[in-house]
Amino acid sequence: MDTRPAFVLIFANNREEALRLVEGIKDKRLLFAIFIGSTRTSLIPGITAAGPNPEATLYTPTLDVEYLVLGRPVTINAIPVTPSGIPTPAIITRACITRLGIPRLIVDCGAYARPKVPHVLLPHASTGGRIDVEDALPEEATRGLIEDARALAECLVNAFDVFVLAESIPAGTTTALAIMTGLGYDAWGKVSSSMTDNPLRLKEEVVRKALTRVKSRDPIHVVSKVGDPVHISIAAFAIEALRQDKAVILAGGTQMCAVLALIKGLLGYEPRNITIVTTRWLLEDRQSDIRGLIKMIGPNTPLIAVPLDFSDAPYPGLRAYEDGYVKEGVGAGGAVFLAHIIHGLSLDAIKRLVYDEYERLLGLMKNVRSH
Amino acid sequence: MDTRPAFVLIFANNREEALRLVEGIKDKRLLFAIFIGSTRTSLIPGITAAGPNPEATLYTPTLDVEYLVLGRPVTINAIPVTPSGIPTPAIITRACITRLGIPRLIVDCGAYARPKVPHVLLPHASTGGRIDVEDALPEEATRGLIEDARALAECLVNAFDVFVLAESIPAGTTTALAIMTGLGYDAWGKVSSSMTDNPLRLKEEVVRKALTRVKSRDPIHVVSKVGDPVHISIAAFAIEALRQDKAVILAGGTQMCAVLALIKGLLGYEPRNITIVTTRWLLEDRQSDIRGLIKMIGPNTPLIAVPLDFSDAPYPGLRAYEDGYVKEGVGAGGAVFLAHIIHGLSLDAIKRLVYDEYERLLGLMKNVRSH
Repeated sequence: MDTRPAFVLIFANNREEALRLVEGIKDKRLLFAIFIGSTRTSLIPGITAAGPNPEATLYTPTLDVEYLVLGRPVTINAIPVTPSGIPTPAIITRACITRLGIPRLIVDCGAYARPKVPHVLLPHASTGGRIDVEDALPEEATRGLIEDARALAECLVNAFDVFVLAESIPAGTTTALAIMTGLGYDAWGKVSSSMTDNPLRLKEEVVRKALTRVKSRDPIHVVSKVGDPVHISIAAFAIEALRQDKAVILAGGTQMCAVLALIKGLLGYEPRNITIVTTRWLLEDRQSDIRGLIKMIGPNTPLIAVPLDFSDAPYPGLRAYEDGYVKEGVGAGGAVFLAHIIHGLSLDAIKRLVYDEYERLLGLMKNVRSH
Repeated sequence: MDTRPAFVLIFANNREEALRLVEGIKDKRLLFAIFIGSTRTSLIPGITAAGPNPEATLYTPTLDVEYLVLGRPVTINAIPVTPSGIPTPAIITRACITRLGIPRLIVDCGAYARPKVPHVLLPHASTGGRIDVEDALPEEATRGLIEDARALAECLVNAFDVFVLAESIPAGTTTALAIMTGLGYDAWGKVSSSMTDNPLRLKEEVVRKALTRVKSRDPIHVVSKVGDPVHISIAAFAIEALRQDKAVILAGGTQMCAVLALIKGLLGYEPRNITIVTTRWLLEDRQSDIRGLIKMIGPNTPLIAVPLDFSDAPYPGLRAYEDGYVKEGVGAGGAVFLAHIIHGLSLDAIKRLVYDEYERLLGLMKNVRSH
């Protein structure tokens, strides 16, 4: 008799390896690490919906992790929302990670505002430049972030078997596109968006301008010219974990393909023991192509999506996910995956947790501006 | 046949509980967390040997953890030494923790200089005031540090079974004396020192001046008036870990009695599941009385000392420990304890690791000033 619980997951690439991960992960020691940072690229009007207006997007990562840890924003008394008022996917992450007590750590790679919750500060943390008009980072900062993230992984590596790495960086899909194309991949038209109408033309325009400054495919050069502080830090952390035979889960959408490309670029080969876990909304998005990116960058990399469905949600802010808003972020897909696999919760039970958290948030938002 | 390895430890209080900890710890998941901070109390001439001169002591915690993580200081190109040139006990900690790969985390509670290695930043981190002439911390900062340390513990608590908490704060024995006496304990003459001649009269004079500002035995009031950012942060972290049924090891000397007193003061009762682990040098010191402090503050608290002996060391800087210099710090005793119990290394093997690290350091110091 098969007594394994019936996991409801979409295996979208390398099903065999993905199944091995899922079956082996139950009793593993794992850490959910959220890497945050800002890029002034998010100030370009219309490029991201990760904040009610361009200036506000600079604060979104900080508010995301403050809310994640404490259940309320601190730096500004406002929950991050899209311009149309749809709240941050950190709601899903908080419901699944914080409330289930999964070990977690915030890593600041260069948030515009330092979070007012305990977090690991990488000494070379720097906010990234607006890549259409300026370099992302000095090369020294890029190298420094690599060294910092490696040193952090080294401090923690023996405590865990699996590292689940997530991100919060507004305009991160744009810098991800720049990183992937800078490294030589034809990623045009393939990155996702927090908007229902992906501003692919605007992103392409920004990235084409940025790429005029790229002179080689060296990952450090590419990141320094057209990247941001977050993707490279995740990549460097992952490399150290993989080097010590640990499993890595990249919890995110098409941005994680940029991380994968950086890892491959730095190592010189396609890594093993690394899986991308995302949401159904991301996987099914017709304006982006995460499968296509994986096929180009790391064809053996397992891709798993969690089929969360908010179409019966009593809240318009969550039903909007079904119309293509938000889709992913702050490791939402990976968080649901862990609640499902590690805690054995059904997707219905997870939805109840999310709705419950949303309800709590609505009470909070009566006293709180939308950010 | 008893196949247990022969552990060489000194059980100096509650032997039965101490043995239970030692026998149970082998397969436990543990984290070594080093809490660092500065107090301007260390600027009082003659009060501490944790730096070559009073101004330099402000940088010692930062240099300690940079050296611990990277093997070299970064902020200043100098290894912390006493005025007579004896190097920091972080040498022992690095040999046992970093080089054996024990999971570790730096927590900045208020270092004067922000460390240039990845570290957890507590948002309310503040350098403490010089307690003979000014308050240690605003009450808001004390409350903030308690909340920060609690939130950090909450993020990590389910990943570990045992939290080993260490400190680096020059003049920490003076603020520890002030905390304990402020809380109502007769700790006079009982705190240790990094010097061979403990400046007990000077410490007493400083603390008596400080205590004139103390109006109640409320732990938050006492810390704000005469404490520092480190002891209260360790206490708050420990309380959250204990609340979640985890074991806590306080890795340090008489300062850890101040932590114990704060925990007891905040909880309202003597905590269980908490052990103090230190060095033989500290335990045998005739100018301080850790046993006496424990008897007053937490009579059921196990006290373990590691009988490391450097009398045959080929280096004067280590032989000096046998003359009463340094004695403890940066969790040195707890680090040796873990190398011995978790990694099963004999004290001779541990000494070889320390000598080897010292040798490496001597090579490094040819190119590096003594700090």
